[in-house]
Amino acid sequence: MTTIGVLTGGGDCPGLNAVIRAVVRTGIKYGYDTIGIRDGWAGLVEGNVEPLTDYSVTGILPKGGTILGTSRTNPFRKEADLQRLTDNVRKFGIDAIVAIGGEDTLGVAAKLSEMDIPVVGVPKTIDNDVAGTDYTFGFDTAVAIVTEAIDRLHTTAESHHRVMVVEVMGRHAGWIATVSGIAGGADEILIPEVPFDLDEVCRHLRARYESGKSFSIVVVAEGAKPKEGGGVITQSEKTDAFGHVRLGGVGNYLREELEERLGMETRVTVLGHVQRGGSPTAHDRVLATRFGVRAVELIREKNYGKMVALHGDAIVAVPIGEAVAQLKTVDMDLYDLSKIFFGS
Amino acid sequence: MTTIGVLTGGGDCPGLNAVIRAVVRTGIKYGYDTIGIRDGWAGLVEGNVEPLTDYSVTGILPKGGTILGTSRTNPFRKEADLQRLTDNVRKFGIDAIVAIGGEDTLGVAAKLSEMDIPVVGVPKTIDNDVAGTDYTFGFDTAVAIVTEAIDRLHTTAESHHRVMVVEVMGRHAGWIATVSGIAGGADEILIPEVPFDLDEVCRHLRARYESGKSFSIVVVAEGAKPKEGGGVITQSEKTDAFGHVRLGGVGNYLREELEERLGMETRVTVLGHVQRGGSPTAHDRVLATRFGVRAVELIREKNYGKMVALHGDAIVAVPIGEAVAQLKTVDMDLYDLSKIFFGS
Amino acid sequence: MTTIGVLTGGGDCPGLNAVIRAVVRTGIKYGYDTIGIRDGWAGLVEGNVEPLTDYSVTGILPKGGTILGTSRTNPFRKEADLQRLTDNVRKFGIDAIVAIGGEDTLGVAAKLSEMDIPVVGVPKTIDNDVAGTDYTFGFDTAVAIVTEAIDRLHTTAESHHRVMVVEVMGRHAGWIATVSGIAGGADEILIPEVPFDLDEVCRHLRARYESGKSFSIVVVAEGAKPKEGGGVITQSEKTDAFGHVRLGGVGNYLREELEERLGMETRVTVLGHVQRGGSPTAHDRVLATRFGVRAVELIREKNYGKMVALHGDAIVAVPIGEAVAQLKTVDMDLYDLSKIFFGS
Amino acid sequence: MTTIGVLTGGGDCPGLNAVIRAVVRTGIKYGYDTIGIRDGWAGLVEGNVEPLTDYSVTGILPKGGTILGTSRTNPFRKEADLQRLTDNVRKFGIDAIVAIGGEDTLGVAAKLSEMDIPVVGVPKTIDNDVAGTDYTFGFDTAVAIVTEAIDRLHTTAESHHRVMVVEVMGRHAGWIATVSGIAGGADEILIPEVPFDLDEVCRHLRARYESGKSFSIVVVAEGAKPKEGGGVITQSEKTDAFGHVRLGGVGNYLREELEERLGMETRVTVLGHVQRGGSPTAHDRVLATRFGVRAVELIREKNYGKMVALHGDAIVAVPIGEAVAQLKTVDMDLYDLSKIFFGS
Repeated sequence: MTTIGVLTGGGDCPGLNAVIRAVVRTGIKYGYDTIGIRDGWAGLVEGNVEPLTDYSVTGILPKGGTILGTSRTNPFRKEADLQRLTDNVRKFGIDAIVAIGGEDTLGVAAKLSEMDIPVVGVPKTIDNDVAGTDYTFGFDTAVAIVTEAIDRLHTTAESHHRVMVVEVMGRHAGWIATVSGIAGGADEILIPEVPFDLDEVCRHLRARYESGKSFSIVVVAEGAKPKEGGGVITQSEKTDAFGHVRLGGVGNYLREELEERLGMETRVTVLGHVQRGGSPTAHDRVLATRFGVRAVELIREKNYGKMVALHGDAIVAVPIGEAVAQLKTVDMDLYDLSKIFFGS
Repeated sequence: MTTIGVLTGGGDCPGLNAVIRAVVRTGIKYGYDTIGIRDGWAGLVEGNVEPLTDYSVTGILPKGGTILGTSRTNPFRKEADLQRLTDNVRKFGIDAIVAIGGEDTLGVAAKLSEMDIPVVGVPKTIDNDVAGTDYTFGFDTAVAIVTEAIDRLHTTAESHHRVMVVEVMGRHAGWIATVSGIAGGADEILIPEVPFDLDEVCRHLRARYESGKSFSIVVVAEGAKPKEGGGVITQSEKTDAFGHVRLGGVGNYLREELEERLGMETRVTVLGHVQRGGSPTAHDRVLATRFGVRAVELIREKNYGKMVALHGDAIVAVPIGEAVAQLKTVDMDLYDLSKIFFGS
Repeated sequence: MTTIGVLTGGGDCPGLNAVIRAVVRTGIKYGYDTIGIRDGWAGLVEGNVEPLTDYSVTGILPKGGTILGTSRTNPFRKEADLQRLTDNVRKFGIDAIVAIGGEDTLGVAAKLSEMDIPVVGVPKTIDNDVAGTDYTFGFDTAVAIVTEAIDRLHTTAESHHRVMVVEVMGRHAGWIATVSGIAGGADEILIPEVPFDLDEVCRHLRARYESGKSFSIVVVAEGAKPKEGGGVITQSEKTDAFGHVRLGGVGNYLREELEERLGMETRVTVLGHVQRGGSPTAHDRVLATRFGVRAVELIREKNYGKMVALHGDAIVAVPIGEAVAQLKTVDMDLYDLSKIFFGS
Repeated sequence: MTTIGVLTGGGDCPGLNAVIRAVVRTGIKYGYDTIGIRDGWAGLVEGNVEPLTDYSVTGILPKGGTILGTSRTNPFRKEADLQRLTDNVRKFGIDAIVAIGGEDTLGVAAKLSEMDIPVVGVPKTIDNDVAGTDYTFGFDTAVAIVTEAIDRLHTTAESHHRVMVVEVMGRHAGWIATVSGIAGGADEILIPEVPFDLDEVCRHLRARYESGKSFSIVVVAEGAKPKEGGGVITQSEKTDAFGHVRLGGVGNYLREELEERLGMETRVTVLGHVQRGGSPTAHDRVLATRFGVRAVELIREKNYGKMVALHGDAIVAVPIGEAVAQLKTVDMDLYDLSKIFFGS
């Protein structure tokens, strides 16, 4: 009898429960048992596990969050933790682990795999910045939430001749900003990959205003930074020594700067964790389900040390290590496409 | 032939177009012409008007914003403006004006009415704080948007043992915070009507945490203020001389204070103008439609100087003046009811 | 120690869980215990109960369905059942019952009350047809779902010059059809209260078409019936001896008749139980919560044999018996208002 | 100066306006003029065109339907029509046509291309059954709508021990049924590609019931047909001589058969055109936008006779002819995956 251990690590992401359900159900199909490991790697260190049956996963497909809980525990930080983890793998008779998580969780998975513990990874990031896969589940949901917010802001921006700034997730990569900006018809999109020049942004927004459009929507990823020089930092007290925006994030910074420079009322929306909670879109549920099914098939094929990934429309297996080695930043062709719709 | 002039003033509010449509269509039923006045009272000062036909209002029922535009222009500020306004009423043959707006717009309407210009008011405020009517359109939509955000935050708060702060609209009255807080199952609701005591808030959240619930949702109206004294203002630089929260609003203030005092990760969402844009809920469309229909009936009855209002389930007429005389703050019975669900 | 028994009976309705949660939490506030009775009155007959704690109701506020299950069991049909029911009330030490349900469930509650079993009723009907209360929870959700469907149909009707028929719930009363028809901008609304004349319907739709509008939306309650005579029943095989539409419901009947008579492509949508499932709107959650809180307060006041009800904006208590004595049909003023928007 | 003519043909599909907007805006970028052709090929036959400016496409991105209207006119049916069409291409100085449509519209485009009229195709089908492209816009929106309906049905099915049948679009291919069935957690999915055996369906549903799950969700594509033989057609009057289900569609047929055979209350939802109307999802808006941009780039490259298509995550060009030559039926690996979740 094969026993699978499944865990979720890192930040919340719509679709986690859909993966867990798919792992359990596909396991049942092949006659495998599944054990749920609570709170990420912490649960394996502490032996905090529970059997998962068909009944455990009934009704969880549309639900946000994770029935297993999550943590950011890294068992490689303490030797003793690692020992307890490997002891627990044996103790609970776990033949293979399905680790669902982002860079950190999969980084641990990669190392365990090198120690010959059978592991399969499922990539998870709301930000869509994991290398090795075209898309990750949760991203479509985040984009849908941001796009709905932009839609709503359009009507009010229009009636009031205002600039609306929307700060969205994306510390290192601007995928959410770019894709929801295109979907929402943003007039400017600022991302971490391309430091922005406030003078240029103001030029665009003014040009737009002069062409008779009395409002603008600016979507900015939380990790976007102003370019050095370029007349950007007019008020040094708003950024710290490292050029970091200090208070209230980049959205608030832009609100103040744009209002002052353009002389137009400017308002800011900071969606925050609303972007990573709640029911996944149909698209994300299907991707998450396919990932979960494939993860169990990899176990069946004893194809360990791999991460499931989306290439085109196919679910494939790539080495976990490769996947976490680098960050997947925004496709510049897509970002350039978004500019066709700016400033006009 | 009777000619109605219709205008919208003040901030955006889902349902404005539904009122305009109802005015035009009910006018057609009674054989009246309707003229659209652009950008609130400004349009009447400048003679910026256009005829509204059945065709003009086709398809606008579900749309946010206002097809007439809006402004905060007060024609009583300059004598010349008032003269131009009254001249234009004559020039365009306007027999009666339907003024859709909040305190300011209706204040102008009340004064014009005293000058024997036939005016009928339709109350409009996202904040639900106009006296004289049980509810205003737009409020249900704002509550729905906030509640959906709270729902999403629940799943992510739960997985991460976090405190989630949601800052919502409501500068003078906490209706949106109270009603969406009840609907979303908030663990603490802070409103302008009841200055908050941070020590007490922390006590509640800690009690909740100790009872085994590892997360909390705090809904705060933008106009909520800390109580004087009570050990609240630990970091004076965060509030100015008047006790006003200085940077990033009360949501950011709470985020920092709660994180520090509770030692729990705390995140903030500032929904901003997302709350006042976009398609109105079915509930608001019906209320707005009923208001528009009734406004034209008041004109038919030559019952001027009145504002349409919802009393129970009936649409009635109340004096405009009375309605704007005072602010309608939150019903304390409702606020107390919300506390049944706190801290447990 | 006071012990409350709570049960849900009859059809599904968004908001049931919100009532249950409010009962449990308000009970805790007053130091009462709450027992959940499974599957309506059946659970009390069979002794199928479970204690409900704060933990039991955590997270259920936004959820559709009922954690207690439901049935249509009537304990008055068999003497033995009634005996077992009263025995179980004693056995489980139930001091008062909160019965959440429609006509049937409350009918049983009324009879039990006459037998001096302490009962409090909470009205529940998606159709909004319970007398004694202005509105019931679940209704706003149903209206929201239907309105969203009508919104979607508008764009496709418009592009294709089509007649779109939407069949909605409402066997005896046309509340959902009327309110969602107004909210969605329907061009014709057919309800059980007003038998329809197909010739007249076709006249309206043709007039609309001739005025240049190439599409129409017809909302029809499932219980709407053609008028006798009036040239309506052209194809007798579509209705049975009692004038009942035979196959596929009134929506399919209208689709065929309108297509034939108008010579315009006609399509039908039958939303069915989609209208009574899923997460309640914010509005319904608040109403359901207020009902649940008030029900426990009635128990506290030993004010039995009453049903909580919404009068205007107040939650009041009315005799259960009265409430179920008659059906609340559509307010004809509201229905007439909807006609202002027809055929133009 | 290059002039582009753009038209939309066939059924409604969310995302049409997004393509039109992208064509106009990308045209502006390259200095091209764009002419809108009304009501599909009919507009080119009748010379019913209008210039499209930046202003024409402002605000249309999130809107369902098509600002250009649509029709199913085929100019190859009458020689004279074709002549008028080619005359109008010259008369209006159209250098290249962007034809947005399904099999029929693109079939005409392919023939015109063979006559050396410069044409570029953009595939459009809610059903996702056009060969040559991995996905078409509108499909994700349809799936999202169906999935939301299934989510709602789950709660009510659960409370009432019912079988819920959902009939969805898909006359020739079961993409919508399969993908939304997976996303919604359907217990049975019936598609045109795989004739169904009612005995087997009943076996699954009974097995599920016996395993303790008291409800089931069956998703059926409108084009699904019962298998010949297999004890399926018990009531011959329900199907005509060709085995076609006669009245009310396959959903109603299943409702009756399943209720009778399983002895469980069965209800049906027929979503109809709700699936093809309304605002597109963010995903579809981005795909539609990318298609529109690429179509203009093909014109710039004088790469005519091609259709834009999605291959993996890239937008490519394929011969129009090939694309319409065959129907893209459901990927059987995906359909098989859905079965992992059946009957348990």
